[in-house]
Amino acid sequence: MEQVRIGVVGIGNMGGAHADWLAKGEVKGAKLTAVCDTNPACLQLAKEHLGEDILIYDNLDALFAAHCIDALLIATPHYTHPSIAIAAFKHGLHVLTEKPAGVYTKQVRLMNEAAARTNQKFGIMYNQRMNPLYRKLRDLILSGELGEIKRTNWIITNWYRSQSYYDSGNWRATWEGEGGGVLLNQDPHQLDLWQWTTGLMPVRVRAFCSFGKNRNIEVEDDVTAYVEYANGATGVFVTSTGEAPGTNRFEVTGDRGKIVIEDDKLTFWRLRISEKEFNASYTGGFGEPECWKCEVPIEGKNTAHVGIMQNFVDAIRNGTPLEAPGEEGIKGLSISNAMHLSTWLDDWVEMPIDEDLYFQLLQEKIKDSKFRKQAETER
Amino acid sequence: MEQVRIGVVGIGNMGGAHADWLAKGEVKGAKLTAVCDTNPACLQLAKEHLGEDILIYDNLDALFAAHCIDALLIATPHYTHPSIAIAAFKHGLHVLTEKPAGVYTKQVRLMNEAAARTNQKFGIMYNQRMNPLYRKLRDLILSGELGEIKRTNWIITNWYRSQSYYDSGNWRATWEGEGGGVLLNQDPHQLDLWQWTTGLMPVRVRAFCSFGKNRNIEVEDDVTAYVEYANGATGVFVTSTGEAPGTNRFEVTGDRGKIVIEDDKLTFWRLRISEKEFNASYTGGFGEPECWKCEVPIEGKNTAHVGIMQNFVDAIRNGTPLEAPGEEGIKGLSISNAMHLSTWLDDWVEMPIDEDLYFQLLQEKIKDSKFRKQAETER
Repeated sequence: MEQVRIGVVGIGNMGGAHADWLAKGEVKGAKLTAVCDTNPACLQLAKEHLGEDILIYDNLDALFAAHCIDALLIATPHYTHPSIAIAAFKHGLHVLTEKPAGVYTKQVRLMNEAAARTNQKFGIMYNQRMNPLYRKLRDLILSGELGEIKRTNWIITNWYRSQSYYDSGNWRATWEGEGGGVLLNQDPHQLDLWQWTTGLMPVRVRAFCSFGKNRNIEVEDDVTAYVEYANGATGVFVTSTGEAPGTNRFEVTGDRGKIVIEDDKLTFWRLRISEKEFNASYTGGFGEPECWKCEVPIEGKNTAHVGIMQNFVDAIRNGTPLEAPGEEGIKGLSISNAMHLSTWLDDWVEMPIDEDLYFQLLQEKIKDSKFRKQAETER
Repeated sequence: MEQVRIGVVGIGNMGGAHADWLAKGEVKGAKLTAVCDTNPACLQLAKEHLGEDILIYDNLDALFAAHCIDALLIATPHYTHPSIAIAAFKHGLHVLTEKPAGVYTKQVRLMNEAAARTNQKFGIMYNQRMNPLYRKLRDLILSGELGEIKRTNWIITNWYRSQSYYDSGNWRATWEGEGGGVLLNQDPHQLDLWQWTTGLMPVRVRAFCSFGKNRNIEVEDDVTAYVEYANGATGVFVTSTGEAPGTNRFEVTGDRGKIVIEDDKLTFWRLRISEKEFNASYTGGFGEPECWKCEVPIEGKNTAHVGIMQNFVDAIRNGTPLEAPGEEGIKGLSISNAMHLSTWLDDWVEMPIDEDLYFQLLQEKIKDSKFRKQAETER
């Protein structure tokens, strides 16, 4: 394929930026052909900014019928990602979806099954996977440099959001509009990186979500979660939108030392011999293995969204492996669903979670919601 | 009182150091008069090191009967602190006990009740309360500089202990010998500082202790605990003896910013206006309160054990308020007991805990122990 013709659906937020990058030719081998949105104001803006030759649609059926694109980039509200992706696969299109993959794992599983039935490429906009810091962490862990993992600990509380942010859209921070709060809107990248960099998915989760703790919203804005992994390692994930200034500190401890990512720096405290080996042979009582504080070079720049788009286009054109296969979107989402479920049940949740139970409880939250109606009345 | 005559009971470990400092005159207004230990080797060593004029006893009754001391410093195994303190109070002595106050809150409550019935001074060797870093943290919090607390998070995993350490005494890391592991032996200072610096005790605890996870021991060597405070704040405490190099990082977030103590440094990120005030008036959607990274002077040196002894002696001689009143020893111990209990019950534990239930379950652990017998057989 000489040039991949791309359509973007949902251009009100991030989709508008994606369309811009594509229109400016920042992704080699790709061409923005069409945009689609239900909001006439967005389409008008697109017409003015993106140029006359970009096709404009106010509904997906018309876009599909026009046969003007090879790939669809989905940047619509979270809930709609799976159904749009499934429709696009049916029309023979490659799909790149914004995060999160969806709102509940049940619908994302259907999307992944649809993807499995096609030969089309399926990617997810996990742009943080292009960040050299996290790529290096993954490299150090998966290559065995850190040794077997003992503990993970991510404090990611620098998602400060004021009440005015939440009031800026009546879909925001509602069960119906977003299917959750900080876990669904702010944390999908961290929930992805947490398991992608370590290669470890929790086997059980005990989480403590607070709903509308700091803001007048119905979804979670403050979470502490404890997880256990199959090898016996444990993990903690703390997140909030109510703290200023927040913290973004990811610590991973292994048999060969400790790595911390904080303030955009990675530090590796490397043991000269593994802790297990030291412990097995040491006879001195007090004492611990020799440790070197290592400066590890972090090379390359964070190509972020454009990097993910470039990789997606390269996958279509040349069969380059996807950095963020769409099917992996379910991993972070499963963890976030498990955190909700554990809180609702006030109990442990084993992974994989009971998707039907989660779906059912989510529907109850949507049904019992008072927030959407309030918001609608205000407008 | 011209000079406080002090006796030290239990000189095999820290008590030996305390006796040395006293004998060298490092505590003004105090004089080491006697030492007491059941181990003849320790007494022999004391005779050689401390000088001929120090009285030496192999049992407490003899020490009490000699009327040669005004105050007793207790540095015996954890379990015995309360009963020795109670006996000393009965003999009209002032008491300074090593940490932990005891092993279970039930016995410590009896000790505190005995203390309340006397006019003697009762102190506990929380030497970390003399550390200017933690004193400054307490000052910033209790004076209101940090505002209302939202979150506490202490990762204290730099208690590396090899198997050979645990094998060095058959009482170590057993339910009978120590009544617990890292929480009872290594963490008492942090469990004290966690609530002393913040002025907050948890109201409920959900903890996840692993017993003998990294070492061949029966007690906990790895803990993650989640706590909730009365004002809605939450906290996390992570500790382990199986990681190298460990971390010692204490973060407290409040309405006026964030304080982190790590690497023997305190950093205060101070908000220009409080977060609540910002949130109430801000209308801009994205955006957060202006924050200043502040260098706060940390003055004075950490007088540590000698400082606590000096303060105890000053309290006896001049009525100086105690920095670490013995009665407060129950606070950290209650938290550690709650962490055990939550794990054993696999459930929430409300504070104050059910002391009788805790005592009963601890007796069962002691009864079911296989470790003591193994250790005895080896010797």
